[in-house]
Formats: sequence, structure tokens, C-alpha cells
Amino acid sequence: MRHLLSTADLSHADALRILDTAEEMAGVATREVKKLPTLRGRTVVNLFFEDSTRTRISFEAAAKRLSADVMNFSAKGSSVSKGESLKDTVQTLEAIGADAIVMRHWASGAAAQLAESGWTDCAVINAGDGTHEHPTQALLDALTLRRGWAEGRGTEPRGTDLSGMRVLIVGDILHSRVARSGVWLLSTLGAEVGLVAPPTLLPVGVEQWPVTVHYSFDEALATGPHAVMMLRVQAERMGGSFFPSPAEYIRRWGLTDGRLAVVQGLDGPAGAGGMILHPGPMNRGVEISAAAADSPLNRVLDQVSHGVSVRMAVLHLLLSADRSAAAEKTTMTIPGGIA
Amino acid sequence: MRHLLSTADLSHADALRILDTAEEMAGVATREVKKLPTLRGRTVVNLFFEDSTRTRISFEAAAKRLSADVMNFSAKGSSVSKGESLKDTVQTLEAIGADAIVMRHWASGAAAQLAESGWTDCAVINAGDGTHEHPTQALLDALTLRRGWAEGRGTEPRGTDLSGMRVLIVGDILHSRVARSGVWLLSTLGAEVGLVAPPTLLPVGVEQWPVTVHYSFDEALATGPHAVMMLRVQAERMGGSFFPSPAEYIRRWGLTDGRLAVVQGLDGPAGAGGMILHPGPMNRGVEISAAAADSPLNRVLDQVSHGVSVRMAVLHLLLSADRSAAAEKTTMTIPGGIA
Amino acid sequence: MRHLLSTADLSHADALRILDTAEEMAGVATREVKKLPTLRGRTVVNLFFEDSTRTRISFEAAAKRLSADVMNFSAKGSSVSKGESLKDTVQTLEAIGADAIVMRHWASGAAAQLAESGWTDCAVINAGDGTHEHPTQALLDALTLRRGWAEGRGTEPRGTDLSGMRVLIVGDILHSRVARSGVWLLSTLGAEVGLVAPPTLLPVGVEQWPVTVHYSFDEALATGPHAVMMLRVQAERMGGSFFPSPAEYIRRWGLTDGRLAVVQGLDGPAGAGGMILHPGPMNRGVEISAAAADSPLNRVLDQVSHGVSVRMAVLHLLLSADRSAAAEKTTMTIPGGIA
Repeated sequence: MRHLLSTADLSHADALRILDTAEEMAGVATREVKKLPTLRGRTVVNLFFEDSTRTRISFEAAAKRLSADVMNFSAKGSSVSKGESLKDTVQTLEAIGADAIVMRHWASGAAAQLAESGWTDCAVINAGDGTHEHPTQALLDALTLRRGWAEGRGTEPRGTDLSGMRVLIVGDILHSRVARSGVWLLSTLGAEVGLVAPPTLLPVGVEQWPVTVHYSFDEALATGPHAVMMLRVQAERMGGSFFPSPAEYIRRWGLTDGRLAVVQGLDGPAGAGGMILHPGPMNRGVEISAAAADSPLNRVLDQVSHGVSVRMAVLHLLLSADRSAAAEKTTMTIPGGIA
Repeated sequence: MRHLLSTADLSHADALRILDTAEEMAGVATREVKKLPTLRGRTVVNLFFEDSTRTRISFEAAAKRLSADVMNFSAKGSSVSKGESLKDTVQTLEAIGADAIVMRHWASGAAAQLAESGWTDCAVINAGDGTHEHPTQALLDALTLRRGWAEGRGTEPRGTDLSGMRVLIVGDILHSRVARSGVWLLSTLGAEVGLVAPPTLLPVGVEQWPVTVHYSFDEALATGPHAVMMLRVQAERMGGSFFPSPAEYIRRWGLTDGRLAVVQGLDGPAGAGGMILHPGPMNRGVEISAAAADSPLNRVLDQVSHGVSVRMAVLHLLLSADRSAAAEKTTMTIPGGIA
Repeated sequence: MRHLLSTADLSHADALRILDTAEEMAGVATREVKKLPTLRGRTVVNLFFEDSTRTRISFEAAAKRLSADVMNFSAKGSSVSKGESLKDTVQTLEAIGADAIVMRHWASGAAAQLAESGWTDCAVINAGDGTHEHPTQALLDALTLRRGWAEGRGTEPRGTDLSGMRVLIVGDILHSRVARSGVWLLSTLGAEVGLVAPPTLLPVGVEQWPVTVHYSFDEALATGPHAVMMLRVQAERMGGSFFPSPAEYIRRWGLTDGRLAVVQGLDGPAGAGGMILHPGPMNRGVEISAAAADSPLNRVLDQVSHGVSVRMAVLHLLLSADRSAAAEKTTMTIPGGIA
């Protein structure tokens, strides 16, 4: 594997290798070690066709901590808006010296198209493509869940997966690349995934996904999950043709104070209750109450830290391996590349 | 002290320590030494809720010269504009790895609120909050005044303050964070500060400030100041409810060619006359004539250089000290932290 | 020479020195060597009064590969838009610590005015000024042409020029700084330059230029050029008072599939035919057909790579030399400065 495009095609072994590498990177990320020289002289370009300061800055921090040079290319106000094709943009970035292209794009499938086109030798990392996938988000969620799961059992997370863990993903599944990437990755890692959503916010074909579907958050909580992943509500969608009104959404699918009490009583890995995850930024008072946002069960800041570790791991695995050597082998046994 | 929020609460000793450290940094800033490794592996985030290219680029230069990684976070077009709270933004930046947050905010008191909330362990540096304070601007002004004052007496600036120096601050005091920060710091350092402003552009309660108030620039110049600090006029305020017309402003409160001649005749520390300071960018022909802007008495470019030195000093003192050790002590005697 | 403002005043020796240095840099650019420490501790500021992501990112990559610190200053939303003069902006950047200013400006002559004013000791590099010049673009074109010319003859490019090479520049010459810079540099290097353009898109006085003028692309191709440099069409100009309609432009001055066949049959240095150059981004289907854009004769991506090499060379020659020593000498014989 030369790119990170999707979690749907990530094998169990690849996923574990990324998570285990991220655990090593976490030492750097938390500054026990300040900086690694691994990617010195390599260039990472953040190519963003949509604004996303959080994701961009997380990749930037990850690349800098590995001593790479980072250049930010916002497609707004650039030659892209003068009609340049994605092909020409990317080949130009490669000719300028990019080794990896971290791409956020509004079109579902853009990253895969780029990687499969043969247009570039750069490593392509999907930083979100339309409503399709956001694989590093799923990986940081998995790292967070695995840490909690291992802590709960007093074991070391490295080398283990999420077998036996029950996770709910709650909210607008239809439009969420976070949900899609999460479903594939968590399933691959052995978790049992439940989706909770208004019927109008579930995608066609969800019955073929490896998930259980719930329309009622309360009923889903009654099944005893170990973790609850809340999705961000896009306020601009609320009350639209498919979306419940804000009041109804909060009442039926929000993590209210009442539901927080239920989560606190769950037999989750977090000691005093279930884990709460949120991709951020949180809309306090909408999909999550202020008390739930500030609860010690809420791992949102761990997720952000783990985001840097996971992105360091992905950049390291994709860029520091001897990629031509890796390409010759059928099976990779030595870490240093994603097989 | 773990943050730099205001000059009002900066002790005489702290202020001198920053200025003396800045003098050491000036050697780096002027490239006798190219770069210090002090903050290698540390991350400084410029969190700007208002555009300010000059201030942002000065902090960026200071951080890079200390080998820190710098990330720029403009609050426009970011999750902040999607309704994320300051708390969540800052905690996210800390989780990504920020060690210091340099914040420019349109709300007076924003930096202090952030530091006092306990939301973050990052060092918070106020890079301008509403009409309240802009402490690094005051520190660079003080460094510039102290250099001139010491040169005028043939002494070494280090370790000395501004005792005996008379400084006028001229212009729109009401809306100026530069004026507020300057008044507190220069007074702490022993200078006698005079304010010169139209009556409508003085804040309520100015009679409690440690200053003399003048309504006439000419009368104030007749008192024999050593330095004149001109404030920038916000052209969009001119002619508004409180503001004189442009013509009247220039005639009565501008540093015109006529007043430049008076300043040239002053017994200032600058050899041939009084010092002229301006926070930049100058409005030539408005608050300052072209001749005054280009006069050798004008230290505006020294101020800019000193800005980098002062910001290096502040970042160094806040970040390179062993902050947990510093927190245990009641009195700091060893440089390396601001007591 | 202390600045790079124009190719019109670049001597044959200076041009060769830049190209030969760029050949050395190409080894770094292609990562045989990852990074050079040459400009460690030096600061390069990209001062852009017009958006140009490609040019900005190319200079940024070049500076970083030489270990310089880079700061990007977009004049939009900055104090410049508050009425600050170019003089004050540049002196501020120098006071902040800039060693070189890479300036893109909408006004023809801005870079020269800055360099000749004595306002700054920074090295000034013209990254495009109005419709006047874009010297690093011409240098990267020359590097690309020279490589092809040398390859075609089985010789080493270093030390040689373009004597005997015939080059056509095709398109909107009137508004093109790329064309102007190209004409002077390629002529200096010994090439025979032909211009091909609609009569309304040629500048007044072109008959004094060291070129042959053609109105018909087909007739120009019949003269047997070795290389064809296509200019980018500004779509917003098309159909305007001077500009042919899109259909007419393509038919008469576009590099269509039909003309590509002619170029393929040319006795160019590129083996199978003439070289095609384009400054990018290409408007596929307008000034260049998709087949011509993707043809192996098209060197557009080599041009982009060479852009980084040329900019590394220029930064290196302007900044790493002992400039005060260089200033004392009348003639430079040792590389390390541009005489």
C-alpha cells in the first residue's frame, strides 16, 4: 500500500500496524522526545479544496514533528480556481518536490481517483473527500477506543484490537464521512458497531453494512455499549427536507444531561462509565449538552492528540520506507511500510 | 508568572528582566548569531481573531529564530466561525501540541479570561485584546526608549530603567491598547508620562491614571519631553461622533513639520533632539508628516526590530524555563522564568 | 549585482552562472541530497500583492531546501490595505529580519523601483511585476531549453548557452511578462527568438526587439523551430477589445492536435520532435490541446522542477555570498555572488 485513501480497504494487519506506530509516535507527540528527524528533507503539501483548519493544522503539526517541510496550498484563490485540472495541480506539486499530498476535497472519491490515476508518484493521504471517507479520523477514533478498552482491562493496547467492544455512532450518518470511515475500520478491528440516526439520515443500502441500526438513542443505550461516538450536526442542514427540527433532534438524538446519566452508568472501559467521543468542534447544546461536553468520560481532547500521533504514523509509514524495495515484495514482514 | 497578559500587573523586576533578555536576543535578531536552539521541538500557535500581519509576522520571526515550530491559525474560515467556543479552540490547540498561544482578539479581556479560566496549560501571550492592552508593543517601545535614554547619557542600557525620562503619548487614547499598555509600563519603569489628546478621545477615569493630561500638543511640547510617541489614527473613525475632522486633527494633534522643528530643538536623548516613536504603520500626512516620518529622530524601524527581540525574550522566558520547578518557588532569583 | 529584477540587464556571464548553479541545485531538488544548510538563519519573505500560489510555493520550496526561514506576507488584509506605503512595508520587513524580499506586484516596475530607491538592504527578487518582467520564469525556461538542447547533441549543459537554437513564443505577447523576460534572456543566451501573436496582442515598439515577428502560427512552424513556448491565455481577456474570439484564437494561435503533429515532425532537440514549453497552468482546449498538454514533447513539469532549482540558485547567489566583500570588487571571478 502506497496511499491512505479509505478504511474500507485497510486490512486488520495494516490497521494494527498504523495504531501501534501511532502509540510509538505518541511519545514524541507528548514531548518525551521533542522531534524525530525521520522525514527531514521530505516535503508534505496540504492541498485543501475545502477549509478545515483543525485537520490541516493537525497534519502540519505531525509533519513538523517528523522534521518534514510543510507547505499549505489552499485551492481558493489559486490557479485551481482559474480552471486548472486536479491532474495538473498535483503534477505541479510533485514537480515542486512534494513527497506526500494530504488532500481535503469536496468531491467523494477525489483522493482515490488521484491515487489510482497514475498521475503522481506522491503518497496520497485522504483528509476527507465529500461524504465518502476520512480515514485518519477513524484511525484516531480507533486509537482512542483501543486505549480506553485496554485501560479498562488493565492491559497494554499495543498489538490488540477492539474485539468484544460495542460502539454506537450517533447522528447524521447520511452526510458523515467520519461515520463511514469509522464503520469500516471499527468492524475490521472486531468491534460491534451500532448506528443511531433519524431514518431520513441513514444512507440507502445501510442494511448491507456490518452494523446494527437503531432509530432510538434510548433503546440503543439500553443495549449496553462501551462507547458512544457523537457526530457533529451541520447546523445549516437542520430543519431542511431530511432533517428534524433542532428541538426534535436534541430531544431524540442529542447526548442530553439525561442520557449522560445513562452513559455514566454503563459498564464501559472508562471506569466510571462509557466513553464519549466527538470529532469536534462540538456544538454545545445541540448534539451534546455542556455537561456531556465537559464530562471526564468525554475523550474529545485525547482524540485531538491521537490525531497528531496517527498522522505522524501514517506519514512515517508512507514516506520513510524504502518504497521501491517495498514494491518488489509480495508480503511485507518488516515494519517500515504498509504492506 | 506563566503568561503575558498585561503591563498593568508587570512588576518593575519582571519588566527589567524581559528588557534585559531582549537585549541579549537583539544579538541574535541582528544575526551576529543566526539562530538559537532554545525552543527546538516547542510549538507556538498564532491564534488571530483579527488580521494583523505585522504583529503575526513579528511573533513568527521571533519563534523561528528560537527554532520553535510555528503554526498560524486565523479564526476566519475556521471552526471558530462555525460556533466553536474559545475554550474548545484553545484546548484543541493544546491537544495538537501547542506550548504557547499568541492571541490577538477583538474583545477586551479575552487573553486574561483565557489564562485565568484554567482551560489550558499553554502559555498565553496577549497580542492585542480589543482596546485593552498590547503588552509586547509597550515592551518594544520601552526597549527603544531605554536604548535612546542610555545612549544619550553614554551608559549601558542593561539593568537600568526610564527614571527621569519624560514621554508624551499623542492621539486617540480612548481606543488605543498601545496607549494603555504604554502608560502602565512606562510608569512602572519610572518615566513621567504625558497624554495629549482631543478631550473626546480620552477615556473616562483617565484622572486616576499615573499621567499628566494635555489637550494642546503645543503646550505639551513646551514642557520639554524627551520622547514623543505618536499613535496611529484609524481613518475610519475620523469625523465620527467623537473624532475631530481630519484637517482639525492634523492642525492640533498631528506631528506636522512645524512641530517636528520643535522636537528637533528638544533636549532629548537622541542627540539632536527628542525621540519620535510610532507603532506603525504610519499614515504619512495624517498623524505624522512625511518629514517627521523620515526624520532620523524617528525610531519606528528600531521599534520593529526591537519587537522581534522582545517577543523572543517573552517566548524564551515563558517556554524555556522549567515551569513546574518555577511554580514551586515563591521568589525567582535565577533568570529562566518570569517570577 | 545585488538583486534580480529583470533579464534585460542580465549579462551573458551572469545568466550562465545562475543556470550552472541551478544545475548543481537540481541534485538537491531531486533529493540526491535532501537539504542544504546554506541559508540557515536567513529569512526570505514572500511579499505578494497579487495571488500566485504556484510562484509563491516554488520560492517557498526553494528557500526551505536551502534551510532558510520563510514567511509569507500577502498584501491583502494587511496594513498595506490600510494605506501603508511600499517603502514602509519593506523597511518593516527588513527590520523584522528579512534578508531577501521576493515580490510579486501588479505594477510594472515595482521591483526595480524598490531596489533602486535605496529603501532597503534586502536582496530584491522580482517574482513578476505587472506586464513587465518575471525573470525567474525566463531562467527556468532557459534551463529547460538548455537541457533539451544539450541532450539533443549528447553534450553536458553546464557552461553552454543556446547559440543556434530557434525558439517560438506564441500567444498574448502584449500582456505577458513571461514573454518579455524570455525575449531578453533567450537572446542574451544566443537563441533566435520568434514571436507569434495576433497583431492586436503585440506591444508597440516590438520592431525594436531582437526577434522575428509572425502573425501566422503555421508559417512560423514552417521555419523549423526547435522549441515552441506557449503562453497562457487569460480567459477573462478573450473576446475583449483587442482579443480574438476563443474559437478564432484556438484555430489560428492554439497548439491544436494538427499543429502538434507538425511539432512532432520538427527536427528539435527532444529526439522525436520539437520541445513544447508552457508556464502553467495550462488551459486544456484553449491555447493547448489535451493531446499536446500530455505529449512527451511537453516539458511543463520539467519547467516546474527547474523553477525550484533556479530559485534556489538565485537565493543562494544573492544571499550566501559575502555581499560587502563583493561590493568592494569591480569584477567578480569567484562564484558566490552575481557580478
